[in-house]
Amino acid sequence: MRPFDKPSMVILESFRIPGVVDSYTFQPRFPRHRNQHTQTNNHTYKTLFFSQSVDHFGYSNQDKFQERYLLADQYWNKNGGPIFFYTGNEGDITMFVDNTGFIWDTAPEFNALIIFAEHRYYGESLPYGASAFKNPSKLNYLTSEQALADYASLILHLKATIPGAANSPVIAIGGSYGGMLAAWFRIKYPNVVDGAFAASAPIWQFGNLTKCDAYAETVTADFQRESSDCVENIRNSWKTIESIGSTDEGRAFISSTFRLCSPLTSPTDLDTFMAWLNEVWGNLAMVDYPMAADFLEPLPAWPIKSVCMPLSKPYTGKTLIQQLALGADVYFNYTGQAKCLNTSQTATSTLGDLLWSYQACTEMVMPFCTNGVTDMFPPSPWNFTAYSDMCYQQWKVRPSEDWVMTYYWGQNITDASNIIFSNGLLDPWHSGGVLKSLSGSLIAIQIPDGAHHLDLRSETLQDPPDVIAARETERNILRNWLNNN
Amino acid sequence: MRPFDKPSMVILESFRIPGVVDSYTFQPRFPRHRNQHTQTNNHTYKTLFFSQSVDHFGYSNQDKFQERYLLADQYWNKNGGPIFFYTGNEGDITMFVDNTGFIWDTAPEFNALIIFAEHRYYGESLPYGASAFKNPSKLNYLTSEQALADYASLILHLKATIPGAANSPVIAIGGSYGGMLAAWFRIKYPNVVDGAFAASAPIWQFGNLTKCDAYAETVTADFQRESSDCVENIRNSWKTIESIGSTDEGRAFISSTFRLCSPLTSPTDLDTFMAWLNEVWGNLAMVDYPMAADFLEPLPAWPIKSVCMPLSKPYTGKTLIQQLALGADVYFNYTGQAKCLNTSQTATSTLGDLLWSYQACTEMVMPFCTNGVTDMFPPSPWNFTAYSDMCYQQWKVRPSEDWVMTYYWGQNITDASNIIFSNGLLDPWHSGGVLKSLSGSLIAIQIPDGAHHLDLRSETLQDPPDVIAARETERNILRNWLNNN
Repeated sequence: MRPFDKPSMVILESFRIPGVVDSYTFQPRFPRHRNQHTQTNNHTYKTLFFSQSVDHFGYSNQDKFQERYLLADQYWNKNGGPIFFYTGNEGDITMFVDNTGFIWDTAPEFNALIIFAEHRYYGESLPYGASAFKNPSKLNYLTSEQALADYASLILHLKATIPGAANSPVIAIGGSYGGMLAAWFRIKYPNVVDGAFAASAPIWQFGNLTKCDAYAETVTADFQRESSDCVENIRNSWKTIESIGSTDEGRAFISSTFRLCSPLTSPTDLDTFMAWLNEVWGNLAMVDYPMAADFLEPLPAWPIKSVCMPLSKPYTGKTLIQQLALGADVYFNYTGQAKCLNTSQTATSTLGDLLWSYQACTEMVMPFCTNGVTDMFPPSPWNFTAYSDMCYQQWKVRPSEDWVMTYYWGQNITDASNIIFSNGLLDPWHSGGVLKSLSGSLIAIQIPDGAHHLDLRSETLQDPPDVIAARETERNILRNWLNNN
Repeated sequence: MRPFDKPSMVILESFRIPGVVDSYTFQPRFPRHRNQHTQTNNHTYKTLFFSQSVDHFGYSNQDKFQERYLLADQYWNKNGGPIFFYTGNEGDITMFVDNTGFIWDTAPEFNALIIFAEHRYYGESLPYGASAFKNPSKLNYLTSEQALADYASLILHLKATIPGAANSPVIAIGGSYGGMLAAWFRIKYPNVVDGAFAASAPIWQFGNLTKCDAYAETVTADFQRESSDCVENIRNSWKTIESIGSTDEGRAFISSTFRLCSPLTSPTDLDTFMAWLNEVWGNLAMVDYPMAADFLEPLPAWPIKSVCMPLSKPYTGKTLIQQLALGADVYFNYTGQAKCLNTSQTATSTLGDLLWSYQACTEMVMPFCTNGVTDMFPPSPWNFTAYSDMCYQQWKVRPSEDWVMTYYWGQNITDASNIIFSNGLLDPWHSGGVLKSLSGSLIAIQIPDGAHHLDLRSETLQDPPDVIAARETERNILRNWLNNN
């Protein structure tokens, strides 16, 4: 039974690594786009497929799979127009078409050919079908290295087969994990891509390149700028929930106050509920956009402001629970469609979420922790050994703690060139990003009023000035690269 | 039955891809060092092992293997001395210790730590033991990408564990395939290596980056510079051998004239003999050194000169066969130890040769051809389809025609920096190398009187001036990089 009519609920269910980390482990996830086109623009494109090697790095397995890509050539000038190549994230590529308005807003002026390439194992680009996750050996080829090899092979194929494309400069563009891929693409294959625009790409959210508690600090700061009491209430809430939730009567109170679809009947249920609430606050920081938006959930402008409204005075005990529920309601009930809140479903997961959890259990090991002091979350230290054990239990694989830093150059990326790193400072992922320019062509753009890759979204009338300025800078840089190409 | 006391004969057996290409296919191989230390210097080093992931690019197989590396720290200044890191070729790493005198000659002045790292699947660095070749799926991890990942992981391990090494600049050094690896290492992992010295590294011997007949042209030119008649005699010899060898009596004549251990008894034997002769001439061009040397075989200085001596007048018919045998004798009998010549063994192979043939049948696809006009060899066109079919027959894999160019940037390497490409112009591999500087830090050095990475060998009194100058330039460049590090 699903409480909401819309599929967006699955996003919340994805924030933890299902079955891998316990309820209290702080393990943020990139947001997933809602499973529907969320902007009104009716973008036209062709859907095409390209035959890819399942394994670019070995030859025993000579299987092929069909990689989906979307192509829009209505703006393209075949005589020198560039290729804007979206490096698909961990999700169905069609979701990114309408959530990456920057490409559509920018392509006409640049006379660009638009390509959105789907990441292997997601959407319809399935090496071993939709049930691959049932057999971890079938997931062996789900890595960023293989995905980049796909993108490189696809681009060389397009250049070899599309009349006029042979000498077109290519700009890789992506946000979030897609932004990491865009940056890494330029780093590892500058022969294939001439430049990259990596929005909200936390390429340094690995090893000890970034403090593990930085993410939670930003989430907390986003709430702090609305109200100190809001932060204090949330920080105090965990013990209050534990205390009240220690009895059957207390759990019944929490269940009814939050209008939970499945009442909390055990201490484990309570843990799950707290993890779910934990995710809600983290999600809000990612999507604290200045306009009503429909990225994760339909939300008002500056949603944290609304969430903190009922929490802007000190509360304790049952009153705190009631006010918390009012705050969380903003996230779940902005459109008034929610009848009850389903927290038990956080234990299940969509296919895409499962697949990302495999990536997180292999190479995408991002250490996160909370301390409850500089952040408002229950303390949860980073413990790689425990993480690795949980990964082994779930997937029969153990992650590599540092391979991503070896392969993608860690912090020593100054040998690369032509990469824009943009980060919204409200986005808790920004602390794992590149925030300062490293050279004349490794350019960092900070967007103080921006949340998770707001600059990649379509222009709106509510855009704050710093996002407008960021997009203008980004286009100027692209123009400069392309003119000097 | 083996005709020679020494194991060097196996080198000749390696020139073709055993069982893969037919006798007439022109398919040069990199030379293999003789299976013994060939220079008098008694280099001291420790032999160590490092636990490596068998698969750096996937997680289903979490096997480990022990990679061998040799470490010499007697010259090292722990306070800032660099690391000279030899990127091991397709062979036992101990063979490279004494054949890479440049490192030993240079390390004292630079106060360098010396590391020779062994390439996986060769020597004692065996992921699945010495019998892996019997099961092609066990060879799946024999790729240059995995080998470079090994080297990167090893260097980061050394930096993390050797006191004083953490901030040591690293220079990758290699010759032949090892030189390709050194260059590619800097290209793909500039975070790990600060510069590379790639000697006789034909990184462009792929696809259509280099004419497929260029190699044979250089071999021919090397003979031409000694004697036009020598070239004409060899060019005419193929038809003469075919003609005389078409009868039992004629094959007996050839067998006795060349003192073959196993007389030629069939047309197939004759094909094998001609392929073997073909390899002899190619090998001579690689090792046409100005001093008596013992690289492939014990040879006199300028061996082609000696080989061409009995061929410096026009001959025909049986006389031509007799003179050819005298020429070939220089290669096989310089030390007077050969009792008979074994050509039938070209069909078999050492383990190392087999392993390289696997690499050639997967990613190291180097197109070679001969035309009999600009070269002295029987015409043999390049045919990728046939090559691929033969690879499939041998290894149950099909090669990728262009992946190496995608992954290692093809000719578009100007985004890289700090690489020395040196090439001896007598070496037929030079045409696949980088012969012109591409930037202030991608520096090509041509050595007109040099054969296959002569500059990497120890200094000798017979060194021609251009090799002496090349080594001086190379050291100046290294000094410059390290001073600016």
